[in-house]
Amino acid sequence: MNLPARVKVVEVGPRDGLQNEPKPVPTPVKIELIERLAEAGLQAIEAGSFVSPQWVPQMADTAQVLAGIRRRPGVSYPVLVPNQRGLEAALAAGVDEIAVFSAATESFSRKNTNCSIDQGLARLREVAQTALEARVRVRGYVSCALGCPYEGEVKPEIAARVAVELYRMGCYEVSLGDTIGVGTPGKMKALIEAVAREIPVESIAVHCHDTYGQALANCYAALEMGVAVIDASVAGLGGCPYAKGATGNVATEDVVYLLHGLGIETGIDLMRLIDAGQFISSILGRPSHSKVAQAILARRAA
Amino acid sequence: MNLPARVKVVEVGPRDGLQNEPKPVPTPVKIELIERLAEAGLQAIEAGSFVSPQWVPQMADTAQVLAGIRRRPGVSYPVLVPNQRGLEAALAAGVDEIAVFSAATESFSRKNTNCSIDQGLARLREVAQTALEARVRVRGYVSCALGCPYEGEVKPEIAARVAVELYRMGCYEVSLGDTIGVGTPGKMKALIEAVAREIPVESIAVHCHDTYGQALANCYAALEMGVAVIDASVAGLGGCPYAKGATGNVATEDVVYLLHGLGIETGIDLMRLIDAGQFISSILGRPSHSKVAQAILARRAA
Repeated sequence: MNLPARVKVVEVGPRDGLQNEPKPVPTPVKIELIERLAEAGLQAIEAGSFVSPQWVPQMADTAQVLAGIRRRPGVSYPVLVPNQRGLEAALAAGVDEIAVFSAATESFSRKNTNCSIDQGLARLREVAQTALEARVRVRGYVSCALGCPYEGEVKPEIAARVAVELYRMGCYEVSLGDTIGVGTPGKMKALIEAVAREIPVESIAVHCHDTYGQALANCYAALEMGVAVIDASVAGLGGCPYAKGATGNVATEDVVYLLHGLGIETGIDLMRLIDAGQFISSILGRPSHSKVAQAILARRAA
Repeated sequence: MNLPARVKVVEVGPRDGLQNEPKPVPTPVKIELIERLAEAGLQAIEAGSFVSPQWVPQMADTAQVLAGIRRRPGVSYPVLVPNQRGLEAALAAGVDEIAVFSAATESFSRKNTNCSIDQGLARLREVAQTALEARVRVRGYVSCALGCPYEGEVKPEIAARVAVELYRMGCYEVSLGDTIGVGTPGKMKALIEAVAREIPVESIAVHCHDTYGQALANCYAALEMGVAVIDASVAGLGGCPYAKGATGNVATEDVVYLLHGLGIETGIDLMRLIDAGQFISSILGRPSHSKVAQAILARRAA
């Protein structure tokens, strides 16, 4: 086994996890959640997004969230940015890092961002350049990297090309997203192999959704390929709008349990993380999707 | 990757899955469930157990279940048997296969079967001998192979010794059970390595509980070690009484999705399997624990 000794967990709950909530979560709750996640030892916490509030009203308060949190040294607070206008708002809010995204498939790109992949990438190239000039780090997301709701299975080379383009435009890290959670470990490995042929494996992250229950197996497969960055969402917050009734993001608690079980360092305190998950779950009024949280809370109660 | 080309899935839902139901499931429902599972292509379906009805009233009708199903060629219907008396009842019911079990830890053995591991193994040796003389195949279970609710983490050598003893007494297959679901892939691999040092890997099965969400990752780790038999429970039926509120057996649907995604043959029709899971879930009046079933049913509904 050739597993990394240390893994960075990128917490996406406050953004990816909350962006589909039917009722926007109040700003003070988001701030408290981010603070609790930082207390638990997370070193990268996606704090929100600067997209049009008409499209994603749940994230309209991102500037206020950023103003309200205590920026801790050693912790990054990336925000999602779709275009130059979003970047300007992000820069005005004093962000240290942005995240840009492109789909791996033409159909998803057109439906989601109303342009072809290459048109989108050209726009992101400008965004990335402006951000880098402002000394803001840029992270890239490839969505639908293992499967697309419109095109089905996605070939590794197809997703890899988009990942490489994001890296070349200046993304220090590219997160391969199994947006609809259809992937299995062999496909994850083939994808990482294709991407790692072109860019350093240290710059590859994975972002697995658990829609088909495969997320942790896919994370493990990625670790076996040397990937040392995993995106996750506390309490499994967030769902995929394209797979109704199905669960979405892999739960950070479950990822951390996996990593610690493998003897991999994360710097994260699992019990504090579980408490952060309970905080937001109780406010949302529904049980955590994390099985680790469920099991440990049941043990605590017993 | 050195994955097996074909995997046998051992369906434990009708026994392990239903043995903790607060209200025993009616015999005709069990029969219908087993028939549907066989229709879906399962080739090993645990049909019940011959334990004292005082201890497990849910399984008191096992003889009637066995009398009611159509025994298909190429399908085995093992039943759990704890002792000579259970074996006699199983033989009278005309079983083709029994399963015997031992815990990996002394504490669990004493709490669960009121004897030491070696006392239990001596009793099982007699049971196995009688069964083999009657030309009935014997399968072995090691419970708490990765963790024990009383003793915590279990060393690979400790669980391996029990597995080897079961093999030596005539079990053609030994299933390593992560009864409380605490294992992670590295520990699963270490366990299989320890067992495979003594007995052929073809005779090793894994039985993972998903209490901490690690079951599929552990199954994948086992496959990487060459294990080609996986126990699973349709709809994720069954829980672990020692981890209240937590989910139990890994769902057969999710295992089959993993296997097919890896290009591994199972002979199982996933859609028919999902229908079997829906059948029993609707009768129990609760949603399936299978994420694959949830996702595919949501897609069907959309």
